[in-house]
This record gives sequence, C-alpha cells and structure tokens, in this order.
Amino acid sequence: MTPRLPPLDPAVAEIRLALRRALGSGESAVARRSDVPLALVALSGGADSLALAAAAAHEARAGGHRFGAEVVDHGLQEGSADVAERAAGQARALGLDPVLVRPVDVDAADPDGPEAAARRARYAALEAAADETGAAAILTAHTRDDQAEQVLLGLSRGSGTRSIAGIPPRRGRILRPLLGVPRSSTEAACAAQGLDPWTDPQNADPAFARVRARISVLPVLERELGPGAAAALARSAEQAREDADALDGMVDECIEELVEFAEAGIAVLIPALAANPAAIRHRVIRRVARDEFGALLSRTHTLEIDRLITEWRGQGPLTVPGATVVRAGERLVFTAATPFEREQESHGRVPPRR
Amino acid sequence: MTPRLPPLDPAVAEIRLALRRALGSGESAVARRSDVPLALVALSGGADSLALAAAAAHEARAGGHRFGAEVVDHGLQEGSADVAERAAGQARALGLDPVLVRPVDVDAADPDGPEAAARRARYAALEAAADETGAAAILTAHTRDDQAEQVLLGLSRGSGTRSIAGIPPRRGRILRPLLGVPRSSTEAACAAQGLDPWTDPQNADPAFARVRARISVLPVLERELGPGAAAALARSAEQAREDADALDGMVDECIEELVEFAEAGIAVLIPALAANPAAIRHRVIRRVARDEFGALLSRTHTLEIDRLITEWRGQGPLTVPGATVVRAGERLVFTAATPFEREQESHGRVPPRR
Repeated sequence: MTPRLPPLDPAVAEIRLALRRALGSGESAVARRSDVPLALVALSGGADSLALAAAAAHEARAGGHRFGAEVVDHGLQEGSADVAERAAGQARALGLDPVLVRPVDVDAADPDGPEAAARRARYAALEAAADETGAAAILTAHTRDDQAEQVLLGLSRGSGTRSIAGIPPRRGRILRPLLGVPRSSTEAACAAQGLDPWTDPQNADPAFARVRARISVLPVLERELGPGAAAALARSAEQAREDADALDGMVDECIEELVEFAEAGIAVLIPALAANPAAIRHRVIRRVARDEFGALLSRTHTLEIDRLITEWRGQGPLTVPGATVVRAGERLVFTAATPFEREQESHGRVPPRR
Repeated sequence: MTPRLPPLDPAVAEIRLALRRALGSGESAVARRSDVPLALVALSGGADSLALAAAAAHEARAGGHRFGAEVVDHGLQEGSADVAERAAGQARALGLDPVLVRPVDVDAADPDGPEAAARRARYAALEAAADETGAAAILTAHTRDDQAEQVLLGLSRGSGTRSIAGIPPRRGRILRPLLGVPRSSTEAACAAQGLDPWTDPQNADPAFARVRARISVLPVLERELGPGAAAALARSAEQAREDADALDGMVDECIEELVEFAEAGIAVLIPALAANPAAIRHRVIRRVARDEFGALLSRTHTLEIDRLITEWRGQGPLTVPGATVVRAGERLVFTAATPFEREQESHGRVPPRR
C-alpha cells in the first residue's frame, strides 16, 4: 500500500524533481541494462534516504524506471538488524521492489578508521546487490548539507581543489540526486508524507568530525557570514569539481608525452613539463608519484620537486615518500626509495613542514 | 636609531626569511627601476605592518634594497592623523627612508560599501607614492590569517575558484611577503623587538564580516576540525589560485578563436566551445558577458546559457543581466539587453535562483 500523498507539498516536489533530473542526466547509464531499468535506493531509514525512496516510488508509477531498495546492516549498533528490517518494511510499503537487507562485516581495526571501513563495506554491498539484481543505478541520498560538511572537512585538510570538490554527483553507476537539496527538505518531505524516519544516534555523536562540522561549524558560518553558507559551500564544490575534472583531464591527455621509462625508474621531460602552468606541473608530479610509487605527495614535497624545474640551482636529490627524485640534465628522474631512504624519510630527513 | 634586536628570535627570523623570499621571487620587478631598488612598506602601525617594517629595516642593512614606508591616513576614525604620525615615527626610528604620510578621502557613500572605498583609496595612494618615489615594489603585510579570513568570505559567497583563491601574493608591483606567516608571529616579532604596535579598534568590530570570520568562525574551525585550519585554508587558497590562473590562461589563449563579432552583438562558435570541459565553457561564457556587456553572471545564469550548448531543446532566448542570449544554429549570439529587457530582468523575469 502506498500512503496517500498530499499534492504539491513543496519539499516533496523538490525531491521528485531532483530525482527526475538525475535520472534524466544519467539516462544512458540507467537505460543500458534492460528495457525498464532498475535503480536501487541505498536506504538507511533516515529522513534523507526515506524521502528519496518515497520519490522513487512515485517515479515508478510514472513508468520508465523500476525502483528497489537495499538496506545495509552495518551491525555496529545495538538493534541494527531491527532498524534495517523496519526500513525495509517502509520501502516495501512504498511499493519498491525488490527490497534487500544485507548484513556486512565492518573491520573495526581498519587502518583508515571505522568510518572508512563502514563506507567501504557499505558500497561493496550496494555494488554486489546491484550486480545481483541487474540494477543499472544505485541512488544514495546525500544532501546539500552532507556536501557542505564534506567541503568543510576537505578545506580543513587543505589538500586542494579535489578535496574541496566534495562528494561527486555520480561515480560509475552510483547517482546522488539530492546533492542540491537541503536536509530540511527531506525532513519536511517525510513529515508531509506521513513517513516516520529513523534517527541515527551516530548523527549526533561529536566523536565524528563530520558531526562536528554539521552541528558546530556550519551553524556558526550561517550565523556569522550570512544565511546560505551551506548552499554556497555546495556551489563552491560544484565549481571545484569542474576545475579539477578539467585539469585532471588535461593531465590524462599529456602525461604520456611527458614521461618515459628510464633504467632507474621513470623520467619526466623537463622542457615539456616546464611549458605548463603550475596547476598542471604539480598534478603531473603528484600523478607520477601516485601511479608509480603509490605515494600521495604533500604540497610541500610537490613544491620541492617543482623547484627542481623552476628554481634549479643544482639542489637535490630529494627524498620524498616512496621515491627519490633527482634532476639529470633535462629530465626529472623518479626512482623507488631504497629501504635506507625510507628509513631516513620516516625519521624526518625531509621535514614535513606542512 | 634602530632598536637593538635580540638575535635569533624565531618569529623575527620567520618574517625576515619570508620578506627575503618574496623579494627574491620578485627580483626582476624590484630591480627594474634603479641599481639599488626601493620598496615601500604599506604601514598602518599595526603588528603586521610594523613587524614587516622592522624586517625591511634589517634587510636594508644587508644591502640590495632600499626600503621606505607609506602611511595612509584614511581619516575615518578620531585621531587617525596622530596614529599615522606615530607609525611614521616608528618607521623613521627603524631607519626606513623615505617615510610618507598621506591623507586620503574615503567616499562613505560608495555603492560598494565603505570597506571597498577605503581599500580603493588606500591602494591609489600607495601607487601614487610609489610613482612619486620611484619605488619598484609596494609591500603589504597581509598574513596567513588574513588569507584564511578571505577564503572563508569567498566560500560564503560560493562564487568559485577565484574567490577561494583569496588574496594574491603579487599583483603588479604589490608584493605580500607574509601571506604564509601567522599573525601570532608578527605579534611575537614586535614584542621581541620592543616595538609597540597600534591596535585598530576596527579589527574587533563585529560589524565587519572579516572581523566575524576572524573572531567567531576561524576559532570554531580550529577547535572542531583540528588545529591548523587557518594554514589549511591558506594552502587551499594557493592551490585554487594556481587552478584559476591555469584555466583563465587557457581561456585567454582560446577565446579569440571561439568568438566572432556579429551584426547583432557577439557570437560564440558552439562546436569549438562544446569540445571543452565545463570549467572552460563556463569561463568563456562569463568572460564574454563581462568583457562585452560589463555583466558578472551568476552561476545559475552561466549554467542556463551552457545548457543552450549541452542540452539543446530549442529553448531560449535567455535574458541575463546586460544581455540576451540566443542559439542560432551553431552559434551562441549575445546581444546587449534592450532597456525593456533590462526592466524585465530587474523585475525578475529570469529569477536569480541563487
């Protein structure tokens, strides 16, 4: 039974429109697998994903798409199985089909931390469910507020345009239709449709940086620098994503012409690299270190390597995480760090100044 | 008389090093005008510019540069002439020469607001003093904290990478050597050198958004998202500047090939523009509107025009501030808005949704 929907509630309309737009722009991907393509809503039972599930149920009646839901039970909280079953029941009542509940194991000792481990387990389960059901798209309910929080977390790391770009609206078959919709609208939409969302106690736990960004930082930004700070951060994210995509795309296009494999490691051709602006040079340096040595260079190390090109005074060789970099004539030669150099590095011979 | 400097105070050393680096990187510009080039410190008497003046006095003894100072008296506060004279006296005592004091008129009714008017008057006076004295460089004492505040203000507008890029380290002959130095260091350097800085009461006046960013927002960011938020924001600014410079440079290079003057206005060639990523397309659209019609397009308007290229369904013409845009075959034609259209626009026929 689908609950009777009061017509024209603006929050309900906003979410339906956002879903329709995302499906429209993702048409080719969504339509690929079958004549009436299936999309799975990633459902926690919270206001965001419940409102998205309701919009999906409405959209299903319009035809063109079938919608199911997958509830991931992370097993991290007391009673999580009940929470998952309740959310699944709500999805079935809305008319979504199929509705799957999947328990996952989260590695609490994951070196990247429990949040990252939970995220990884969740997306693996979603992808597996999509494979199993033949779903062409997975819909997550991240909102504009999630986006603003992510931008703040990226800013507080200071690790560049890509981290300011926040949560991508689309990655593979994952679509995030609500990135432009405020959380207040998902809450209002649930209320307007008589849906009773689950309140995750972790969403109020200040042990998480994301929660502190939400409850302590964003309200201060809104109060002190003007209402609309969350929307402005989300807009900044969109533009940062476009910039990062464009610049990464340019690096994709030129990297093969700039590097050659040398006996000792990999060489970057200096005259060709030097002809590029700093934004491209730095990305090429970081890309080589990442792809060849699995190293994520800090800004300080990236700039130090760049100075071998732009302020050459015979300095080096430089020891950076995973590699040694030396200028040899018109080439920048990266070689894998020896165990001795890695030891030196970990003892701070190249001080991580930032 | 130069005050006796205790050797090796780390804050003093940090500021001297930052000044030396900025002068080094600006060598060609600074050395252009005479054999021993003159640089003017823009001095308010506050801790930042006083510490910079002291570093300049030290650097002058090392030879290579002469340093003077210019104190701008904005005449906005009671006793501002006395404050200016006191700062000038400190500069002379440090050994700077020449030291100029210039009163300026700030238009309190300036449509851009009193802060913008004061800034404009200040920079005009600095440029005039540099012309008069033959100075090759003007040094302002903006710190890393100023930079972080500027990034927060840019973010709260959400107007893109250029606004996140904050304060430029260099613009024409203006150099800002302390953009990587925390304000705490300028205060420590003044204390270590027995210099008594002036405390501008406006720096604590929460009527200014910049002051609110400083006293209310940044401390919350540092507390909630980890120490180093100001440094991270400054680092984000550096990278955003590189990205914006690279992308603007690419637009500079391609814009002439993309546009042609049409009878009705200016035309952009769609196939050539469409071959570019969104970051370039949007910049070309904004550039044409700015350069031809003096209009600063919002993100909403920019995206709406871009959809004439990427999601063409026969829509338009679009009325945006200053212009009408229509797709005619393979061309995007911008024409100056008629008075009637401007009227419609100002009444919101094209609603500025963001």
